[in-house]
Amino acid sequence: MTVGSAPGAAESLPALPVQALAWEGDEDGFLRILDQTRLPEEERWIDCVDIQTLWEAIRSLRVRGAPAIGIAAAYGVCLSLRHKTGGTSELVAEVHRAAEFLSTARPTAVNLFWALDRMRQTSKACEGLPPELFRRRILEEALAIHREDRAMCEAIGRWGASLLPEEAVVLTHCNTGALATGGVGTALGIVYTAVSLGKKVHVYADETRPLLQGARLTAWELCRWGIPCTLICEGMAGALMARRKIDAVFVGADRIAANGDTANKIGTYGLAVLAGYHRVPFYVAAPSSSFDLSIASGADIPIEERDPSEVRCPRGVPFAPPEVAVWNPAFDVTPAELITAIVCEKGIIQPVCRENIARVLAGDERAA
Amino acid sequence: MTVGSAPGAAESLPALPVQALAWEGDEDGFLRILDQTRLPEEERWIDCVDIQTLWEAIRSLRVRGAPAIGIAAAYGVCLSLRHKTGGTSELVAEVHRAAEFLSTARPTAVNLFWALDRMRQTSKACEGLPPELFRRRILEEALAIHREDRAMCEAIGRWGASLLPEEAVVLTHCNTGALATGGVGTALGIVYTAVSLGKKVHVYADETRPLLQGARLTAWELCRWGIPCTLICEGMAGALMARRKIDAVFVGADRIAANGDTANKIGTYGLAVLAGYHRVPFYVAAPSSSFDLSIASGADIPIEERDPSEVRCPRGVPFAPPEVAVWNPAFDVTPAELITAIVCEKGIIQPVCRENIARVLAGDERAA
Repeated sequence: MTVGSAPGAAESLPALPVQALAWEGDEDGFLRILDQTRLPEEERWIDCVDIQTLWEAIRSLRVRGAPAIGIAAAYGVCLSLRHKTGGTSELVAEVHRAAEFLSTARPTAVNLFWALDRMRQTSKACEGLPPELFRRRILEEALAIHREDRAMCEAIGRWGASLLPEEAVVLTHCNTGALATGGVGTALGIVYTAVSLGKKVHVYADETRPLLQGARLTAWELCRWGIPCTLICEGMAGALMARRKIDAVFVGADRIAANGDTANKIGTYGLAVLAGYHRVPFYVAAPSSSFDLSIASGADIPIEERDPSEVRCPRGVPFAPPEVAVWNPAFDVTPAELITAIVCEKGIIQPVCRENIARVLAGDERAA
Repeated sequence: MTVGSAPGAAESLPALPVQALAWEGDEDGFLRILDQTRLPEEERWIDCVDIQTLWEAIRSLRVRGAPAIGIAAAYGVCLSLRHKTGGTSELVAEVHRAAEFLSTARPTAVNLFWALDRMRQTSKACEGLPPELFRRRILEEALAIHREDRAMCEAIGRWGASLLPEEAVVLTHCNTGALATGGVGTALGIVYTAVSLGKKVHVYADETRPLLQGARLTAWELCRWGIPCTLICEGMAGALMARRKIDAVFVGADRIAANGDTANKIGTYGLAVLAGYHRVPFYVAAPSSSFDLSIASGADIPIEERDPSEVRCPRGVPFAPPEVAVWNPAFDVTPAELITAIVCEKGIIQPVCRENIARVLAGDERAA
């Protein structure tokens, strides 16, 4: 691992004002990621030149957010071919080893498996190419995944912005902005888009314990963009909805089952129950790569449980006796019936049900 | 302020295994309090010899919990008479000045005002006594408030334990144990009592951001007592209720209006909504001194808003950009209709309504 300054434009993707990751150079290049565990104190960039460094970066949430994890993993496959000589069949084997290894970094976000599958398929389709061309095609596929994610963020932003009034107060959870994706974000991308369209939006951000993605990342992004933001603790969301008119809750997704049940950052489900109780629209925003139609319902989504120290000792500070037991699931599942609509790049899925999901994902048609 | 070792028994109150505060000595004695802001790392006792030190200790939550705040304030009136010479009329004036000053320490917990009122009334009743006897009677009244609080905790414990099955899983919020009262606690006192009666109880404790009373104090108390405890973040409570059978939620109260609306630590209201959604009984446990029958409903309870740094920078560690706005209410109000029952020392109020509250508070009769 080496540490450098902020990245310039990646080979074929122009830089955004806030950006989680960028590929630098050609097939022998490397992946530069912003170490999100250091924010907001420090903007530290890490140059990942090997796959182990990237695996650790995904595992320890230096790069996080379901879409960004998928993009990072796709670039990780390119890293495995860096400076590799030998025949194409060796490169193909290397792609499969890398995809296998990277798929163990985190279990819940389906974008990881989706992106690695796409890289495997590209590898298969390019088996007949000479080695140099094979490596180029693999990098081109990773760049395409990144570029498409940007376009998906923009489309989600446009669809979602249509759901907001001219002056809106929005509550959000975790981080779903530029730091979580390859573009402007999913749920937070909707806020950016609405503001760029001239709407006035005030965002309340849950701090999102235990890892504080709301406090550290969402607040930091919104301050950068100059969008009014008020930070709260999760326990304040109920009082906020009772006291102040909240126009909408917007959250992201790590995996959406065929019936619309949605796994997302722990705390999302409680927020959905509160929104339902207060009749506040509850929206999920995610690219189609976050859908896992092979899974019938949320009950089948694997939920990652993480180290107790994240709860007992955040950022190295003891919050609790070291001997106390901790339950630390990273995600929860919100049932489809609590979700007003799902916004993806192909349209708005409302009401959320198997049929509407299948129809919108199949075409560009907006479900009624 | 001086710092000493753990207190021996107060003049007329035997020490408990876990104790928040104790009066040491006679009328010229002082109040020893456990600095709860230092827990769980350090058990540091502060000897309050003057009223300013005590005011600061209440204000900065070195001593906290509605019943304990009331007891501390009563002792604070005694501190104002420490080594005081002069006639009784001067002492009476001093009592009123002290009560006035101490009532500004925190706005929400009604026990503070209740205890100070009792001290004022005692002062009025003793106006005709010689100075030394007057000072003794004032201390005796503070000790009586403390002693009665212990008895109230025990009675609440007995009533509340009857609501739990032989093997129970309980979820609680903030700290309502020995550290929050003069005795074994209110909501947590019910757990202690149930365990002492041979029931098996597993407690899930919300960490209770921003000031972490659950992580720092409840977890510490339960570890001390050897009662199984699992710490969670507030955002996990919904997933917990969806995944595991929770038999009951028990919380305390800072002020209960005549109709049963209850102000308690921020996060309580959200927990009540979640409990209602999952059909988990939601119980409030509080002594009768936490009722404020002069207030018709929760809408009239003043809610303290505290410093943004508690959210942005807990325990000195930056969690968020320093420039981000914060909303930091210390309490929220849970409407009576979300409360299954209120347990006080006089019985169980169920259903929670104005008539049942008035009836149970008036006598020792258990409302149907």
